Amino acid sequence: MAVQTVESSTSNPTVDLGPAAALSCRECGHRVPLGPVFACEECFGPLEIAYDFSAYGAEELRKRIEAGPANIWRYAPLLPVPADVAGKPNLNPGWTKLVKADNLARELGVETGKLFVKDDSGNPTHSFKDRVVAQALEAARAFGFTTLSCSSTGNLAGAVGAAAARAGFRSCVFIPHDLEQGKVVMAAVYGGELVGIEGNYDDVNRFCSELIGDPAGEGWGFVNVNLRPYYAEGSKTLAYEICEQLGWRLPDQIVVPIASGSQLTKIDKGLQELIELGLVEDKPYKIFGAQAEGCSPVSTAFKAGNDVVRPQKPNTIAKSLAIGNPADGPYVLDVARRTGGAVEDVTDEQVVDAIKLLARTEGIFAETAGGVTVGVTRKLIENGVLDPSLTTVVLNTGDGLKTLDAVAGTGLTATIRPSLESFREAGLV
Amino acid sequence: MAVQTVESSTSNPTVDLGPAAALSCRECGHRVPLGPVFACEECFGPLEIAYDFSAYGAEELRKRIEAGPANIWRYAPLLPVPADVAGKPNLNPGWTKLVKADNLARELGVETGKLFVKDDSGNPTHSFKDRVVAQALEAARAFGFTTLSCSSTGNLAGAVGAAAARAGFRSCVFIPHDLEQGKVVMAAVYGGELVGIEGNYDDVNRFCSELIGDPAGEGWGFVNVNLRPYYAEGSKTLAYEICEQLGWRLPDQIVVPIASGSQLTKIDKGLQELIELGLVEDKPYKIFGAQAEGCSPVSTAFKAGNDVVRPQKPNTIAKSLAIGNPADGPYVLDVARRTGGAVEDVTDEQVVDAIKLLARTEGIFAETAGGVTVGVTRKLIENGVLDPSLTTVVLNTGDGLKTLDAVAGTGLTATIRPSLESFREAGLV
Repeated sequence: MAVQTVESSTSNPTVDLGPAAALSCRECGHRVPLGPVFACEECFGPLEIAYDFSAYGAEELRKRIEAGPANIWRYAPLLPVPADVAGKPNLNPGWTKLVKADNLARELGVETGKLFVKDDSGNPTHSFKDRVVAQALEAARAFGFTTLSCSSTGNLAGAVGAAAARAGFRSCVFIPHDLEQGKVVMAAVYGGELVGIEGNYDDVNRFCSELIGDPAGEGWGFVNVNLRPYYAEGSKTLAYEICEQLGWRLPDQIVVPIASGSQLTKIDKGLQELIELGLVEDKPYKIFGAQAEGCSPVSTAFKAGNDVVRPQKPNTIAKSLAIGNPADGPYVLDVARRTGGAVEDVTDEQVVDAIKLLARTEGIFAETAGGVTVGVTRKLIENGVLDPSLTTVVLNTGDGLKTLDAVAGTGLTATIRPSLESFREAGLV
Repeated sequence: MAVQTVESSTSNPTVDLGPAAALSCRECGHRVPLGPVFACEECFGPLEIAYDFSAYGAEELRKRIEAGPANIWRYAPLLPVPADVAGKPNLNPGWTKLVKADNLARELGVETGKLFVKDDSGNPTHSFKDRVVAQALEAARAFGFTTLSCSSTGNLAGAVGAAAARAGFRSCVFIPHDLEQGKVVMAAVYGGELVGIEGNYDDVNRFCSELIGDPAGEGWGFVNVNLRPYYAEGSKTLAYEICEQLGWRLPDQIVVPIASGSQLTKIDKGLQELIELGLVEDKPYKIFGAQAEGCSPVSTAFKAGNDVVRPQKPNTIAKSLAIGNPADGPYVLDVARRTGGAVEDVTDEQVVDAIKLLARTEGIFAETAGGVTVGVTRKLIENGVLDPSLTTVVLNTGDGLKTLDAVAGTGLTATIRPSLESFREAGLV
């Protein structure tokens, strides 16, 4: 992978990204100015945002947030975005529903009033990706990029296409050339360039890294490559919203899906920030990671007690989580162990059962990734790992309409003639 | 159709549905107590809700609304629901985004800052039907029903299935037996009864009316039949939200899709209520109705200057609007003429173009019904009927993910090998 360091970048120390102060290496702590770079020049570790949160005291900050818009920009003082971000054209994702799931709680044996589903299918393109793309877009604006790009196999392509359209950016999204037609349509409808690459997702990724180092890629912001440090911060907003929606309280347990692992580690980062800023009372919480058995490198490492995550070849219906070599795998293991959580996996059959369970109990139609988290929650309770008497939040990060195939077996209860006789014969009364 | 009058109903004058005081005939004004009835016993005209709004003054009402939840229940004092509705299990739809659509405005020649899209794809099951079903559900609770039912060909089936699941009702939804598999899955996933009727949509409707009059239908609330007066009021919330999101101002022009016509007439009712209650300043506004050419009975009548709407056999891709004999057609004509608006239609090709236009300008992927309203807006501006210098709100009532077939022709811009050479050859730089 072509690693771009700060010297070769267009970094500008006067760039205004609100409280974001610098980029800091997660491995060695080396700091560089804010710029479109993602790997440390010293040790090649991942860069992440370092903040200066000294602008507001806790009380003032809480008031500002509560008076803010009903989207992620209520948390602008805690994100790498300029203070006037809410006035710029973007999709304004977030502030999705935290659903008190008493029906599901009863089915899972959880105490009434203690189980919640954070339902990110309410975002503009119906997945949590709108949160992270919105951050990357502001970084792209700050760095003077004019094209928004990414490699994707699904949700991200649509989120980038939609955000770019709204913000007046050109978009150019790279996908494997043999993706299902439905997913191609969902990404293509926003009118940007949609380029099929002859190869698999790894080939697409490798090509994007090449393009970043080439003059042809000048002015291009790849949301999940050279803008990744900014992009990843979007997942913190899930932690902020959950706590605010619980009345500025930390949950006791959170169940988070694992693809690259970035979302889980950033949710932990977000919770830690709220504690440090005095917005919530400090207390223990546990973070649980959820994978599908057919792509469970982190779960496998967790159970084996390993610190290293061995790559797997994905084979699961939970395609939005099917990253066989998750970049943040080791950090996920660290969070799960440090907080007293766990990482667990479920079979594709259990994923489908869990999608149907969530739909028939709470009226929420989840993507396969939501089936993974609900399925893992059930398994963790059955195994005595997750405590059913504590406040638990389960994430649904996507929309069932995008993975209809997973529940294609669902159908008519009965077919009758349009007559009361036929109705009675079918035993429906 | 079996008409159920108040004598034969389970009506209870002590039922608590907030400010709803009685049912009143839209034709003759005859009033009856609140109950699961929909047709006047005197003249067979449609019954609608009559309110007593005297509980609050304008200032207090506005404050209560603004302090309310970020969903339709902020308007509980103006809806046929009990005051504590927000605490009951339902899907809490509404408070969807009003998107300032400057990119679309530029394409349509509308003044910057004057064009807005009310995007109801953000609702729980991604269509405006969640608003109306939520009202019907409260009426069903009030009348002691235990089964929620409807006839449907799409959006409504999912909305009823999901709401019933969440609220702990049994659901039994009737659809034509030969519906597309995708739509069947979307409705079936919530786990209620889904019954295919051997026949067309008219046969389904006729069967539902029979069932209401039969002992087999006892305890059943058909959201769009015996609960229709309550159900229909949900569309008022679109008017409330638009005005509040504009800063408690009436828009100058609204473009609304027409299926049965109920939505358009209830939006007018909602605007009138806000004026009467002193929540917005009185001023003229125009309501425009939008249809697809392949099912344009109201548009045809409007253009011909008729008061009577002649039924048509629908043939359009905008299936969620394909009601050939719209019950509220004459009332729509009245609203359009009274407010100085119009009713217009567009071809299926224009619908598809408009879906793509909205997606590439604002990042909003609309259902075919949204293509109809955007397409009609464009046509009305081109024809000089809609004033591009005034504040205009266009409704998108559904989600593009549910009508992917309409834009199935959209696809890859290019297919390349994973190399910079191949990228350059494709002319994408």
